[in-house]
Amino acid sequence: MYSFKNDYSEGAYPKILNALIESNMTQEEGYGYDRHTQNAVSKIKNLIHNKNVDVHLISGGTQTNLTAIGAFLKPHEACISTNTGHIAVNETGAIEYTGHKVITVDSDDGKIYPDKIENILDSHSNEHVVKPKLVYISNPTELGTIYTKEELKNLNEFCKSNNLILYADGARLGSAICAKGADLTLSDMCNFTDAFFIGGTKNGALLGEALVIKNENLKEDFRYHIKQKGALLAKGRLLGIQFEQLFTDNLYFELANHANEMAYLLNAGLKESNCKFLIDSPTNQIFPILENKIIERLEQKFNFYTWKKIDNNHSAIRLVTSWATKKEAVLEFINEFKK
Amino acid sequence: MYSFKNDYSEGAYPKILNALIESNMTQEEGYGYDRHTQNAVSKIKNLIHNKNVDVHLISGGTQTNLTAIGAFLKPHEACISTNTGHIAVNETGAIEYTGHKVITVDSDDGKIYPDKIENILDSHSNEHVVKPKLVYISNPTELGTIYTKEELKNLNEFCKSNNLILYADGARLGSAICAKGADLTLSDMCNFTDAFFIGGTKNGALLGEALVIKNENLKEDFRYHIKQKGALLAKGRLLGIQFEQLFTDNLYFELANHANEMAYLLNAGLKESNCKFLIDSPTNQIFPILENKIIERLEQKFNFYTWKKIDNNHSAIRLVTSWATKKEAVLEFINEFKK
Amino acid sequence: MYSFKNDYSEGAYPKILNALIESNMTQEEGYGYDRHTQNAVSKIKNLIHNKNVDVHLISGGTQTNLTAIGAFLKPHEACISTNTGHIAVNETGAIEYTGHKVITVDSDDGKIYPDKIENILDSHSNEHVVKPKLVYISNPTELGTIYTKEELKNLNEFCKSNNLILYADGARLGSAICAKGADLTLSDMCNFTDAFFIGGTKNGALLGEALVIKNENLKEDFRYHIKQKGALLAKGRLLGIQFEQLFTDNLYFELANHANEMAYLLNAGLKESNCKFLIDSPTNQIFPILENKIIERLEQKFNFYTWKKIDNNHSAIRLVTSWATKKEAVLEFINEFKK
Amino acid sequence: MYSFKNDYSEGAYPKILNALIESNMTQEEGYGYDRHTQNAVSKIKNLIHNKNVDVHLISGGTQTNLTAIGAFLKPHEACISTNTGHIAVNETGAIEYTGHKVITVDSDDGKIYPDKIENILDSHSNEHVVKPKLVYISNPTELGTIYTKEELKNLNEFCKSNNLILYADGARLGSAICAKGADLTLSDMCNFTDAFFIGGTKNGALLGEALVIKNENLKEDFRYHIKQKGALLAKGRLLGIQFEQLFTDNLYFELANHANEMAYLLNAGLKESNCKFLIDSPTNQIFPILENKIIERLEQKFNFYTWKKIDNNHSAIRLVTSWATKKEAVLEFINEFKK
Repeated sequence: MYSFKNDYSEGAYPKILNALIESNMTQEEGYGYDRHTQNAVSKIKNLIHNKNVDVHLISGGTQTNLTAIGAFLKPHEACISTNTGHIAVNETGAIEYTGHKVITVDSDDGKIYPDKIENILDSHSNEHVVKPKLVYISNPTELGTIYTKEELKNLNEFCKSNNLILYADGARLGSAICAKGADLTLSDMCNFTDAFFIGGTKNGALLGEALVIKNENLKEDFRYHIKQKGALLAKGRLLGIQFEQLFTDNLYFELANHANEMAYLLNAGLKESNCKFLIDSPTNQIFPILENKIIERLEQKFNFYTWKKIDNNHSAIRLVTSWATKKEAVLEFINEFKK
Repeated sequence: MYSFKNDYSEGAYPKILNALIESNMTQEEGYGYDRHTQNAVSKIKNLIHNKNVDVHLISGGTQTNLTAIGAFLKPHEACISTNTGHIAVNETGAIEYTGHKVITVDSDDGKIYPDKIENILDSHSNEHVVKPKLVYISNPTELGTIYTKEELKNLNEFCKSNNLILYADGARLGSAICAKGADLTLSDMCNFTDAFFIGGTKNGALLGEALVIKNENLKEDFRYHIKQKGALLAKGRLLGIQFEQLFTDNLYFELANHANEMAYLLNAGLKESNCKFLIDSPTNQIFPILENKIIERLEQKFNFYTWKKIDNNHSAIRLVTSWATKKEAVLEFINEFKK
Repeated sequence: MYSFKNDYSEGAYPKILNALIESNMTQEEGYGYDRHTQNAVSKIKNLIHNKNVDVHLISGGTQTNLTAIGAFLKPHEACISTNTGHIAVNETGAIEYTGHKVITVDSDDGKIYPDKIENILDSHSNEHVVKPKLVYISNPTELGTIYTKEELKNLNEFCKSNNLILYADGARLGSAICAKGADLTLSDMCNFTDAFFIGGTKNGALLGEALVIKNENLKEDFRYHIKQKGALLAKGRLLGIQFEQLFTDNLYFELANHANEMAYLLNAGLKESNCKFLIDSPTNQIFPILENKIIERLEQKFNFYTWKKIDNNHSAIRLVTSWATKKEAVLEFINEFKK
Repeated sequence: MYSFKNDYSEGAYPKILNALIESNMTQEEGYGYDRHTQNAVSKIKNLIHNKNVDVHLISGGTQTNLTAIGAFLKPHEACISTNTGHIAVNETGAIEYTGHKVITVDSDDGKIYPDKIENILDSHSNEHVVKPKLVYISNPTELGTIYTKEELKNLNEFCKSNNLILYADGARLGSAICAKGADLTLSDMCNFTDAFFIGGTKNGALLGEALVIKNENLKEDFRYHIKQKGALLAKGRLLGIQFEQLFTDNLYFELANHANEMAYLLNAGLKESNCKFLIDSPTNQIFPILENKIIERLEQKFNFYTWKKIDNNHSAIRLVTSWATKKEAVLEFINEFKK
């Protein structure tokens, strides 16, 4: 049964595996001091046109979020996130385990806007409540929507003028940057945040996220935090080699483009039959609203999540595409739907 | 320059990489629900002759230690470790970050004995001090020494009769079990502890440790803890495939045996020239005591750690062998030493 | 300027101070092993008709909440609270600092009902999200409303059948139990919760809350947690003497009754002039809705919090009475309001 | 039976209780914004000749230590303490609960010296181990010994030049400052540390310690930390009034002097009969070494701790005096000893 359940059902982009094999018997330093990691870091710095950032390769998204946020905040400081944010919902309280409250704000489109943050600041002004200090966003959001350059710039300005850290979760950042209509570059992500990460796991790697820290105040001793959270891999080369490949010959964006194109194909196919969507997503997650009996039929042949009940007869499902999604599978899904 | 610095300088045993490639494009469930992980878990249960244990695959040793100990203890409970224990020294306070004190006891050989624990229990008997609850050992120890079956059995009995959890770090467990003179099996490790882990990273895998939980009271909801600590890999197949290979056709022990044999070869070569050792280690870490000027000369050609100053002219160095250590490199080292 | 701002503006009920003086030079054991604490604990057990509970005297409400909840939960477990709950809003993230998420549910009247909890349980069913384990209520709520016996019984049954801990914050419990229309006794509080506390600070003591733990599973080693959180007073007698007095000759309820009567007098006086209220509170906090210009006038003579904007011309204020509130001050406030 | 077990067996110095009574019915702001707290803070600033420090009144010693250290350190940073330090031994892992390791160094006299710290720094130089950041001392130490001005000055200079925070626990600070031979003033304590506290609980108050923060970097948002740890008393006046009295007319030092004099009287009486001591303590804790059968006899009439076994026939006991110790009791103890 073909799966559109997520973007981590397959292994790695084959070129990455080849690189692992080729380098396999060469001895390297441990803990991220290998040559591949250094090379990957250097490639990332070039791509974002900033030599002064610190780049750390970490095994997964939750791991990166908890290590970064746990390091950036003092005990009484809190994060602000939308109510659908990954740290607010899907990390088993990892942020709270580091001791910090996640304050949530409502959001229809998964994005966070300055006015919502301002409300939070207004109601958090003394020592009887936590001190909001970090704004967590993801690009794309959990709903597949993306930030425009203007939106991110405004958000960043608002954060700066309110002494807030702006941190972006980029688990699917490739898809956001390559999305139709997107005007944000990797370099903009860096310019308009204090720190962000570039997701590898969901874009062709076996595992790995590249955390970029721009704000000087957040850089100090960061490797201590990685180690303390159990995230400093002895064979750091495993991460280094993968990001080295992802950022050679534009591979990272090629893979993201493929994922997006497969989503657009699905999207177009469903729309042809007048399918409605929960939200208009330009990235590799789409949320068509289907009749429940159609969903049941599709589930005989495909794997996917039912996302949300719409009414007694309809639900939104989530379809996710990736670098590995086959065009034939997409066409088959559309055909099956049209029956 | 050839490195005897550690057992994680190379990538993975080639058969493991091949298995990654072969399975690469097959879709699998995420988060450890893939077929490879299930298969690996089943193989491990067979090997230890216990179907009732829970087995979890986790990316690294510190990660496993902090996740397990953080899950096993209540806030006021503490671990007991030797003063050379990995959790006491080399994990950047990861255990303390989970809120628990690590009480240390002196140990010449890196092992912990009931009488030392008894002293700790005697001085920790009311609510003004922490409550010792978990005994942390590693096999082999940080000094390369190993527990005999009798020793582990005694320790376990002592722990049971004092309501203590016995937990074993097996980052290099293969080397301990295959060591000359060892009488402990993987199955014994399970019988005589509440939980222990089987290290993959230092025995041929890219990353990964297999945590085995036998004590029923420690099993509940363990996957929540893995996720909360950021250690639940989306592509859990990466761990599953590796352990599947390691526990097929005895590979895990073959690799450990090779590492040990290379250490014995080094050992014998050095002893021939009357070299003394810091401690008698039957595993893949050895600690010869050399004249400082010989150390300096060896450092021109080989990479290794200087472990400890012995006197003004002598130091102990640490030489580590692995599944990947080449016999020629060992012989070359011995030759160089003999010059 | 007379203050209706809170119920902790004065010192202690004079009889309590006298008891401190009378016992002052007698030597007592430290850390809660004094005879006064033992006597107070015994009186509380008698009053709730349950000799098997554990009773601990702790200095304040936030301290009690964080110590209890931090002790009761495992790392991946979370609390459920209304969005106005003290732990959710007013404790500077104290619960999150202990590592636990506070999941909030909307509530118009400050109370929590089984259907709201059920929704939370439905959306928290796997290891990617926290595990809801403890329901936090307060009686009276932050809005001054109270639980009926039937409501608490139902809530407790729901919690039991869903394996949830029911914990009640009783910072103003005296006022709830003595409220007009209340049908809950101290004994019911114990019968229908796993643990709850009886507030002293806001009912005549200098400081102190009496935590009652009924559930056997939550009792073990609790004094360790009190000590670890810095809450075990060397001179525990200070708490013991106060609760000894509060639970002698019905004093605790007399003081609460006075506070309630003063609130009713205020309430009646304001209602005579057709004043509306934000919510109908039968306890010592009331929330009249006034014209802003009247509020400004009253602020010339009285101290109180403006609670909530209602519209451009009206706001709700909070008036709090206590054991120390003077009838003359209440009448003066009413007169001033009527002008 | 008269107790020399500790310095918190009685209530408060009577003048303090009188002040509580006199101020009792006056309404004051909550949470430390009352006039008494402001007055006490101002008196303390005057006494230490430094208007720029921040002073916070907190209920107890462990509470103060955990709040301060938890606020001062980042997650990967650790404390250094002697192996007898209160935070190392007697706080039920409170510091570890805040996430920080307590590194211990051996000490015969309970004091810490720069060379010991230097050893720790030498062995903690990379991200695989915690980063030592705060040196914890107490004055007097747990063994009753005191720091000279020169010693504290040197320690502070060493800390400054190594970027370490120097923090002093002053639970019995009065006794240290008033000790025979002491050359340190309260003002010196401030000049030569980053933060320290002045103990009230063990010197005449019902409860309360005054934390003085001099280092600018450690001041920010400190009230948030107090609140988050449950240590912000609603009736902050209780602490304010007590410190107001303690620092009026030199009372704090008078009480400490009395405690010391009673200790000297004991000391002299025992020495007359050639009693040996575990250590030479000039403060209100002394540690005579007695024959076990004499100890048993004394225990019929007096309460005290047996501190340490010396040999099969001898043990050291601990005798503690306080502001409340009666001269007659001391003389009786000496007589009983001489029998």
